[in-house]
Amino acid sequence: MDLPSKHLSKAVEQMGSLPGIGKRTALRLVLHLLTQETGEVEEFAESFKSLIHNTKTCKNCHNISDYEICEICIKPTRDKATICVVQDIRDILAIENTMQYKGLYHVLNGIISPMDGIGPNDINIESLVRRANQPETKEIILALSATMEGDTTNFFIHKKLAHCNVNTSIIARGIGIGNELEYTDEITLGRSILNRSPFESSLKM
Amino acid sequence: MDLPSKHLSKAVEQMGSLPGIGKRTALRLVLHLLTQETGEVEEFAESFKSLIHNTKTCKNCHNISDYEICEICIKPTRDKATICVVQDIRDILAIENTMQYKGLYHVLNGIISPMDGIGPNDINIESLVRRANQPETKEIILALSATMEGDTTNFFIHKKLAHCNVNTSIIARGIGIGNELEYTDEITLGRSILNRSPFESSLKM
Repeated sequence: MDLPSKHLSKAVEQMGSLPGIGKRTALRLVLHLLTQETGEVEEFAESFKSLIHNTKTCKNCHNISDYEICEICIKPTRDKATICVVQDIRDILAIENTMQYKGLYHVLNGIISPMDGIGPNDINIESLVRRANQPETKEIILALSATMEGDTTNFFIHKKLAHCNVNTSIIARGIGIGNELEYTDEITLGRSILNRSPFESSLKM
Repeated sequence: MDLPSKHLSKAVEQMGSLPGIGKRTALRLVLHLLTQETGEVEEFAESFKSLIHNTKTCKNCHNISDYEICEICIKPTRDKATICVVQDIRDILAIENTMQYKGLYHVLNGIISPMDGIGPNDINIESLVRRANQPETKEIILALSATMEGDTTNFFIHKKLAHCNVNTSIIARGIGIGNELEYTDEITLGRSILNRSPFESSLKM
Protein backbone atom coordinates (compact mmCIF):
# COMPACT_ATOMS: atom_id res chain seq x y z
CA MET A 1 0.00 0.00 0.00
CA ASP A 2 1.66 3.19 -1.20
CA LEU A 3 0.35 6.09 0.84
CA PRO A 4 0.28 9.56 -0.71
CA SER A 5 2.13 11.28 2.18
CA LYS A 6 5.19 10.25 4.17
CA HIS A 7 3.76 11.77 7.36
CA LEU A 8 0.66 9.66 6.84
CA SER A 9 2.85 6.58 6.20
CA LYS A 10 4.80 7.19 9.37
CA ALA A 11 1.67 7.63 11.51
CA VAL A 12 0.10 4.49 10.02
CA GLU A 13 3.29 2.54 10.66
CA GLN A 14 3.37 3.70 14.29
CA MET A 15 -0.32 2.95 14.84
CA GLY A 16 0.18 -0.45 13.20
CA SER A 17 2.95 -1.26 15.69
CA LEU A 18 0.34 -1.65 18.42
CA PRO A 19 -0.60 -5.28 19.15
CA GLY A 20 -3.64 -6.47 17.20
CA ILE A 21 -3.80 -3.38 14.96
CA GLY A 22 -3.22 -4.32 11.33
CA LYS A 23 -2.32 -2.02 8.46
CA ARG A 24 -5.92 -1.40 7.32
CA THR A 25 -7.17 -0.65 10.83
CA ALA A 26 -4.17 1.60 11.43
CA LEU A 27 -5.00 3.58 8.29
CA ARG A 28 -8.64 3.89 9.33
CA LEU A 29 -7.66 5.16 12.79
CA VAL A 30 -5.08 7.62 11.43
CA LEU A 31 -7.53 8.98 8.83
CA HIS A 32 -9.99 9.49 11.69
CA LEU A 33 -7.34 11.53 13.52
CA LEU A 34 -6.85 13.63 10.37
CA THR A 35 -10.50 14.65 10.51
CA GLN A 36 -10.08 15.98 14.06
CA GLU A 37 -9.10 19.48 15.18
CA THR A 38 -5.35 20.14 15.47
CA GLY A 39 -5.71 20.74 19.21
CA GLU A 40 -7.40 17.41 19.73
CA VAL A 41 -4.69 15.49 17.91
CA GLU A 42 -2.05 17.39 19.93
CA GLU A 43 -3.81 16.31 23.11
CA PHE A 44 -3.98 12.73 21.81
CA ALA A 45 -0.23 12.68 21.13
CA GLU A 46 0.70 14.46 24.37
CA SER A 47 -1.24 11.95 26.48
CA PHE A 48 1.21 9.20 25.48
CA LYS A 49 4.26 11.35 26.16
CA SER A 50 2.91 12.29 29.54
CA LEU A 51 2.15 8.61 30.17
CA ILE A 52 5.69 7.42 29.51
CA HIS A 53 7.34 10.31 31.39
CA ASN A 54 5.12 10.54 34.45
CA THR A 55 3.87 7.11 35.44
CA LYS A 56 5.95 5.19 37.95
CA THR A 57 5.97 1.62 39.15
CA CYS A 58 5.05 1.16 42.82
CA LYS A 59 8.22 0.24 44.75
CA ASN A 60 6.26 -2.20 46.83
CA CYS A 61 3.94 -4.11 44.49
CA HIS A 62 4.97 -2.98 40.95
CA ASN A 63 1.49 -1.60 40.22
CA ILE A 64 1.40 1.45 37.96
CA SER A 65 1.08 4.71 39.87
CA ASP A 66 1.69 8.45 39.72
CA TYR A 67 3.70 8.16 42.97
CA GLU A 68 6.50 6.01 44.43
CA ILE A 69 3.98 3.92 46.35
CA CYS A 70 0.63 3.10 44.72
CA GLU A 71 -2.75 4.05 46.14
CA ILE A 72 -3.55 0.47 47.15
CA CYS A 73 -0.31 -0.07 49.12
CA ILE A 74 -0.63 3.29 50.86
CA LYS A 75 -4.30 2.94 51.88
CA PRO A 76 -4.49 2.34 55.65
CA THR A 77 -7.68 0.27 55.41
CA ARG A 78 -6.13 -2.45 53.22
CA ASP A 79 -5.17 -5.72 54.90
CA LYS A 80 -1.34 -5.75 54.90
CA ALA A 81 -1.18 -9.45 55.88
CA THR A 82 -2.42 -10.75 52.51
CA ILE A 83 -0.71 -10.39 49.13
CA CYS A 84 -2.44 -11.43 45.92
CA VAL A 85 0.00 -12.32 43.12
CA VAL A 86 -1.20 -11.31 39.62
CA GLN A 87 0.29 -11.33 36.14
CA ASP A 88 -0.31 -7.69 35.23
CA ILE A 89 -2.20 -4.59 36.29
CA ARG A 90 -5.30 -5.50 34.30
CA ASP A 91 -5.77 -8.38 36.73
CA ILE A 92 -5.69 -5.92 39.64
CA LEU A 93 -8.49 -3.95 37.98
CA ALA A 94 -10.49 -7.15 37.45
CA ILE A 95 -10.09 -8.24 41.08
CA GLU A 96 -10.78 -4.74 42.45
CA ASN A 97 -14.02 -4.69 40.43
CA THR A 98 -15.24 -7.77 42.34
CA MET A 99 -14.97 -5.78 45.61
CA GLN A 100 -14.23 -9.12 47.36
CA TYR A 101 -10.57 -8.49 48.19
CA LYS A 102 -9.13 -6.03 50.68
CA GLY A 103 -5.47 -7.09 50.80
CA LEU A 104 -2.41 -5.96 48.82
CA TYR A 105 -1.20 -7.08 45.40
CA HIS A 106 2.04 -8.12 43.79
CA VAL A 107 2.35 -7.61 40.00
CA LEU A 108 4.70 -10.18 38.42
CA ASN A 109 4.70 -8.25 35.15
CA GLY A 110 4.65 -11.44 33.14
CA ILE A 111 4.43 -15.15 33.57
CA ILE A 112 7.03 -17.92 33.23
CA SER A 113 6.82 -18.98 29.59
CA PRO A 114 9.80 -20.84 28.11
CA MET A 115 8.13 -20.64 24.66
CA ASP A 116 8.34 -16.83 24.80
CA GLY A 117 11.78 -16.90 26.44
CA ILE A 118 10.45 -15.58 29.77
CA GLY A 119 12.16 -17.21 32.73
CA PRO A 120 11.75 -16.75 36.51
CA ASN A 121 14.35 -13.96 36.56
CA ASP A 122 12.41 -11.87 34.03
CA ILE A 123 9.43 -11.38 36.32
CA ASN A 124 9.09 -9.86 39.81
CA ILE A 125 9.59 -13.01 41.91
CA GLU A 126 12.62 -11.92 43.98
CA SER A 127 10.74 -8.91 45.35
CA LEU A 128 7.79 -11.19 46.15
CA VAL A 129 10.07 -13.43 48.24
CA ARG A 130 11.38 -10.32 50.08
CA ARG A 131 7.80 -9.25 50.82
CA ALA A 132 6.86 -12.77 51.94
CA ASN A 133 9.71 -12.62 54.46
CA GLN A 134 8.38 -9.46 56.08
CA PRO A 135 6.85 -10.32 59.47
CA GLU A 136 3.43 -8.73 58.70
CA THR A 137 2.84 -11.00 55.68
CA LYS A 138 0.70 -14.02 56.52
CA GLU A 139 -0.77 -15.26 53.25
CA ILE A 140 0.18 -15.22 49.56
CA ILE A 141 -2.76 -15.80 47.18
CA LEU A 142 -1.75 -16.99 43.72
CA ALA A 143 -4.22 -15.49 41.20
CA LEU A 144 -2.70 -16.39 37.84
CA SER A 145 -4.48 -17.69 34.74
CA ALA A 146 -5.42 -21.39 34.73
CA THR A 147 -3.04 -22.11 31.84
CA MET A 148 0.13 -24.17 31.59
CA GLU A 149 2.23 -21.01 32.04
CA GLY A 150 0.13 -19.97 35.04
CA ASP A 151 0.53 -23.39 36.65
CA THR A 152 4.30 -23.41 36.03
CA THR A 153 4.60 -19.99 37.64
CA ASN A 154 2.35 -20.98 40.56
CA PHE A 155 4.52 -24.05 41.20
CA PHE A 156 7.76 -22.08 40.96
CA ILE A 157 6.53 -19.42 43.40
CA HIS A 158 5.19 -22.05 45.79
CA LYS A 159 8.63 -23.71 45.92
CA LYS A 160 10.40 -20.36 46.33
CA LEU A 161 8.17 -19.50 49.30
CA ALA A 162 8.59 -22.91 50.98
CA HIS A 163 10.98 -21.54 53.60
CA CYS A 164 9.03 -18.35 54.26
CA ASN A 165 6.65 -18.27 57.17
CA VAL A 166 3.53 -17.70 55.01
CA ASN A 167 0.58 -19.71 53.77
CA THR A 168 0.23 -19.90 50.02
CA SER A 169 -3.20 -20.38 48.53
CA ILE A 170 -4.55 -20.48 45.00
CA ILE A 171 -7.83 -19.02 43.70
CA ALA A 172 -10.61 -21.57 43.18
CA ARG A 173 -10.94 -23.27 39.82
CA GLY A 174 -14.27 -24.79 38.89
CA ILE A 175 -17.34 -24.12 36.81
CA GLY A 176 -18.11 -20.43 36.28
CA ILE A 177 -21.12 -18.92 38.06
CA GLY A 178 -24.06 -19.01 35.65
CA ASN A 179 -22.47 -21.70 33.46
CA GLU A 180 -24.34 -24.88 32.58
CA LEU A 181 -22.72 -28.15 33.56
CA GLU A 182 -23.18 -29.81 30.19
CA TYR A 183 -21.21 -27.09 28.37
CA THR A 184 -18.32 -27.05 30.84
CA ASP A 185 -15.16 -28.73 29.52
CA GLU A 186 -14.16 -32.08 31.05
CA ILE A 187 -10.97 -30.92 32.72
CA THR A 188 -12.67 -28.02 34.50
CA LEU A 189 -15.59 -30.24 35.52
CA GLY A 190 -13.26 -33.00 36.75
CA ARG A 191 -11.27 -30.49 38.80
CA SER A 192 -14.41 -28.94 40.24
CA ILE A 193 -15.45 -32.36 41.54
CA LEU A 194 -12.02 -33.10 43.03
CA ASN A 195 -11.89 -29.65 44.65
CA ARG A 196 -15.46 -29.74 46.02
CA SER A 197 -16.03 -27.77 49.18
CA PRO A 198 -18.42 -28.29 52.14
CA PHE A 199 -21.90 -27.09 51.18
CA GLU A 200 -21.98 -24.70 54.14
CA SER A 201 -19.07 -22.70 52.68
CA SER A 202 -21.14 -21.92 49.56
CA LEU A 203 -23.79 -20.27 51.76
CA LYS A 204 -21.34 -17.56 52.80
CA MET A 205 -21.44 -15.95 49.35
CA MET B 1 -12.87 1.10 35.85
CA ASP B 2 -10.76 3.10 38.27
CA LEU B 3 -7.21 3.25 36.94
CA PRO B 4 -4.32 3.66 39.40
CA SER B 5 -2.75 6.65 37.60
CA LYS B 6 -4.31 9.77 36.08
CA HIS B 7 -1.76 9.78 33.25
CA LEU B 8 -2.75 6.21 32.46
CA SER B 9 -6.44 7.22 32.62
CA LYS B 10 -5.86 10.11 30.25
CA ALA B 11 -3.95 7.95 27.73
CA VAL B 12 -6.62 5.24 27.86
CA GLU B 13 -9.35 7.83 27.36
CA GLN B 14 -7.54 9.27 24.34
CA MET B 15 -6.87 5.85 22.83
CA GLY B 16 -10.50 4.90 23.46
CA SER B 17 -11.65 7.96 21.49
CA LEU B 18 -10.55 6.25 18.27
CA PRO B 19 -13.41 4.63 16.33
CA GLY B 20 -13.89 0.95 17.17
CA ILE B 21 -11.47 0.98 20.11
CA GLY B 22 -13.30 0.20 23.35
CA LYS B 23 -12.10 0.79 26.90
CA ARG B 24 -10.58 -2.65 27.38
CA THR B 25 -8.72 -2.59 24.07
CA ALA B 26 -7.54 0.96 24.80
CA LEU B 27 -6.12 -0.19 28.14
CA ARG B 28 -4.38 -3.15 26.50
CA LEU B 29 -2.81 -0.90 23.85
CA VAL B 30 -1.71 1.73 26.37
CA LEU B 31 -0.18 -0.90 28.68
CA HIS B 32 1.71 -2.19 25.65
CA LEU B 33 3.09 1.33 25.11
CA LEU B 34 4.17 1.41 28.75
CA THR B 35 6.37 -1.63 28.17
CA GLN B 36 8.19 0.15 25.32
CA GLU B 37 11.32 2.33 25.52
CA THR B 38 10.71 6.04 26.22
CA GLY B 39 12.19 6.95 22.83
CA GLU B 40 9.80 4.64 21.00
CA VAL B 41 6.75 6.10 22.72
CA GLU B 42 8.03 9.62 21.95
CA GLU B 43 8.31 8.64 18.29
CA PHE B 44 4.81 7.15 18.43
CA ALA B 45 3.35 10.38 19.84
CA GLU B 46 5.36 12.65 17.53
CA SER B 47 4.15 10.82 14.43
CA PHE B 48 0.59 12.04 15.06
CA LYS B 49 1.69 15.63 15.72
CA SER B 50 3.71 15.61 12.55
CA LEU B 51 0.72 14.11 10.72
CA ILE B 52 -1.69 16.84 11.75
CA HIS B 53 0.79 19.69 11.20
CA ASN B 54 2.39 18.61 7.94
CA THR B 55 -0.14 16.83 5.76
CA LYS B 56 -2.07 18.96 3.31
CA THR B 57 -5.13 18.39 1.17
CA CYS B 58 -4.49 18.50 -2.59
CA LYS B 59 -5.99 21.74 -3.96
CA ASN B 60 -7.16 19.92 -7.04
CA CYS B 61 -8.60 16.57 -5.92
CA HIS B 62 -8.65 16.77 -2.06
CA ASN B 63 -6.35 13.73 -1.74
CA ILE B 64 -3.98 13.79 1.24
CA SER B 65 -0.49 14.94 0.32
CA ASP B 66 2.71 16.47 1.67
CA TYR B 67 2.43 19.18 -1.00
CA GLU B 68 -0.17 21.62 -2.37
CA ILE B 69 -0.86 19.32 -5.32
CA CYS B 70 -0.83 15.54 -4.75
CA GLU B 71 1.48 13.12 -6.53
CA ILE B 72 -1.33 11.73 -8.70
CA CYS B 73 -2.51 15.14 -9.98
CA ILE B 74 1.05 16.26 -10.70
CA LYS B 75 2.17 13.12 -12.54
CA PRO B 76 2.46 13.93 -16.28
CA THR B 77 1.57 10.36 -17.35
CA ARG B 78 -1.90 10.40 -15.77
CA ASP B 79 -4.89 10.92 -18.08
CA LYS B 80 -6.19 14.42 -17.24
CA ALA B 81 -9.44 13.86 -19.18
CA THR B 82 -10.91 11.36 -16.71
CA ILE B 83 -11.85 12.03 -13.07
CA CYS B 84 -12.88 9.20 -10.76
CA VAL B 85 -15.10 10.37 -7.86
CA VAL B 86 -14.49 8.49 -4.58
CA GLN B 87 -15.74 8.82 -1.02
CA ASP B 88 -12.38 8.97 0.75
CA ILE B 89 -8.67 8.38 0.24
CA ARG B 90 -8.89 4.69 1.17
CA ASP B 91 -10.87 4.23 -2.04
CA ILE B 92 -8.03 5.82 -4.02
CA LEU B 93 -5.63 3.28 -2.51
CA ALA B 94 -8.01 0.44 -3.38
CA ILE B 95 -8.40 1.59 -7.00
CA GLU B 96 -4.66 2.32 -7.39
CA ASN B 97 -3.96 -1.24 -6.23
CA THR B 98 -5.98 -2.60 -9.16
CA MET B 99 -3.57 -0.85 -11.57
CA GLN B 100 -6.53 -0.55 -14.00
CA TYR B 101 -6.98 3.21 -13.79
CA LYS B 102 -4.70 5.95 -15.11
CA GLY B 103 -6.87 9.05 -14.71
CA LEU B 104 -7.27 11.55 -11.87
CA TYR B 105 -9.42 11.35 -8.74
CA HIS B 106 -11.79 13.55 -6.82
CA VAL B 107 -12.22 12.85 -3.10
CA LEU B 108 -15.68 13.85 -1.85
CA ASN B 109 -14.59 13.38 1.76
CA GLY B 110 -17.92 11.88 2.70
CA ILE B 111 -21.19 10.82 1.16
CA ILE B 112 -24.67 12.35 1.25
CA SER B 113 -26.34 10.80 4.27
CA PRO B 114 -29.35 12.58 5.77
CA MET B 115 -29.34 10.10 8.67
CA ASP B 116 -25.88 11.33 9.69
CA GLY B 117 -26.76 14.95 8.89
CA ILE B 118 -24.40 15.08 5.89
CA GLY B 119 -25.85 17.10 3.02
CA PRO B 120 -24.49 17.98 -0.43
CA ASN B 121 -22.79 21.11 0.90
CA ASP B 122 -20.76 19.16 3.45
CA ILE B 123 -18.83 17.23 0.80
CA ASN B 124 -16.61 18.37 -2.07
CA ILE B 125 -19.22 18.59 -4.83
CA GLU B 126 -18.82 22.29 -5.78
CA SER B 127 -15.14 21.78 -6.61
CA LEU B 128 -16.08 18.71 -8.67
CA VAL B 129 -18.46 20.83 -10.76
CA ARG B 130 -15.67 23.40 -11.26
CA ARG B 131 -13.32 20.62 -12.44
CA ALA B 132 -16.02 19.17 -14.71
CA ASN B 133 -16.32 22.58 -16.39
CA GLN B 134 -12.62 22.68 -17.28
CA PRO B 135 -12.21 22.06 -21.01
CA GLU B 136 -9.76 19.13 -20.60
CA THR B 137 -12.26 17.09 -18.56
CA LYS B 138 -14.15 14.55 -20.71
CA GLU B 139 -15.47 11.88 -18.32
CA ILE B 140 -16.49 11.68 -14.68
CA ILE B 141 -16.54 8.12 -13.27
CA LEU B 142 -18.68 7.68 -10.16
CA ALA B 143 -17.01 5.08 -7.94
CA LEU B 144 -19.04 5.22 -4.72
CA SER B 145 -20.29 2.32 -2.63
CA ALA B 146 -23.37 0.49 -3.89
CA THR B 147 -25.43 1.61 -0.90
CA MET B 148 -28.43 3.89 -0.55
CA GLU B 149 -26.14 6.77 0.42
CA GLY B 150 -23.86 6.03 -2.53
CA ASP B 151 -26.80 5.97 -4.94
CA THR B 152 -28.21 9.23 -3.55
CA THR B 153 -24.84 10.89 -3.98
CA ASN B 154 -24.41 9.44 -7.49
CA PHE B 155 -27.80 10.79 -8.49
CA PHE B 156 -27.14 14.23 -7.00
CA ILE B 157 -23.78 14.53 -8.77
CA HIS B 158 -25.24 13.31 -12.05
CA LYS B 159 -27.89 16.05 -11.89
CA LYS B 160 -25.33 18.69 -10.91
CA LEU B 161 -23.19 17.77 -13.91
CA ALA B 162 -26.11 17.73 -16.37
CA HIS B 163 -25.12 21.09 -17.90
CA CYS B 164 -21.40 20.36 -18.02
CA ASN B 165 -19.91 19.06 -21.23
CA VAL B 166 -18.78 15.71 -19.73
CA ASN B 167 -19.90 12.12 -19.82
CA THR B 168 -20.72 10.62 -16.44
CA SER B 169 -20.32 6.88 -15.95
CA ILE B 170 -20.69 4.58 -12.99
CA ILE B 171 -18.51 1.59 -12.08
CA ALA B 172 -20.03 -1.80 -12.96
CA ARG B 173 -22.20 -3.53 -10.40
CA GLY B 174 -22.70 -7.25 -10.68
CA ILE B 175 -21.51 -10.52 -9.26
CA GLY B 176 -17.97 -10.41 -7.87
CA ILE B 177 -15.20 -12.22 -9.74
CA GLY B 178 -14.80 -15.68 -8.19
CA ASN B 179 -18.26 -15.59 -6.58
CA GLU B 180 -20.74 -18.41 -7.13
CA LEU B 181 -24.10 -17.52 -8.64
CA GLU B 182 -26.16 -19.40 -6.09
CA TYR B 183 -24.70 -17.44 -3.17
CA THR B 184 -25.11 -14.02 -4.80
CA ASP B 185 -27.97 -11.96 -3.35
CA GLU B 186 -31.06 -11.48 -5.50
CA ILE B 187 -30.73 -7.74 -6.02
CA THR B 188 -27.12 -7.99 -7.20
CA LEU B 189 -27.98 -10.93 -9.46
CA GLY B 190 -31.02 -9.16 -10.87
CA ARG B 191 -28.97 -6.04 -11.61
CA SER B 192 -26.20 -8.06 -13.20
CA ILE B 193 -28.73 -9.54 -15.65
CA LEU B 194 -30.24 -6.13 -16.47
CA ASN B 195 -26.77 -4.62 -16.93
CA ARG B 196 -25.39 -7.47 -19.02
CA SER B 197 -22.71 -6.51 -21.53
CA PRO B 198 -21.75 -7.90 -24.97
CA PHE B 199 -19.69 -11.09 -24.53
CA GLU B 200 -16.85 -9.61 -26.58
CA SER B 201 -16.30 -6.86 -23.97
CA SER B 202 -15.55 -9.50 -21.33
CA LEU B 203 -12.69 -10.83 -23.47
CA LYS B 204 -10.79 -7.54 -23.12
CA MET B 205 -9.99 -8.26 -19.46
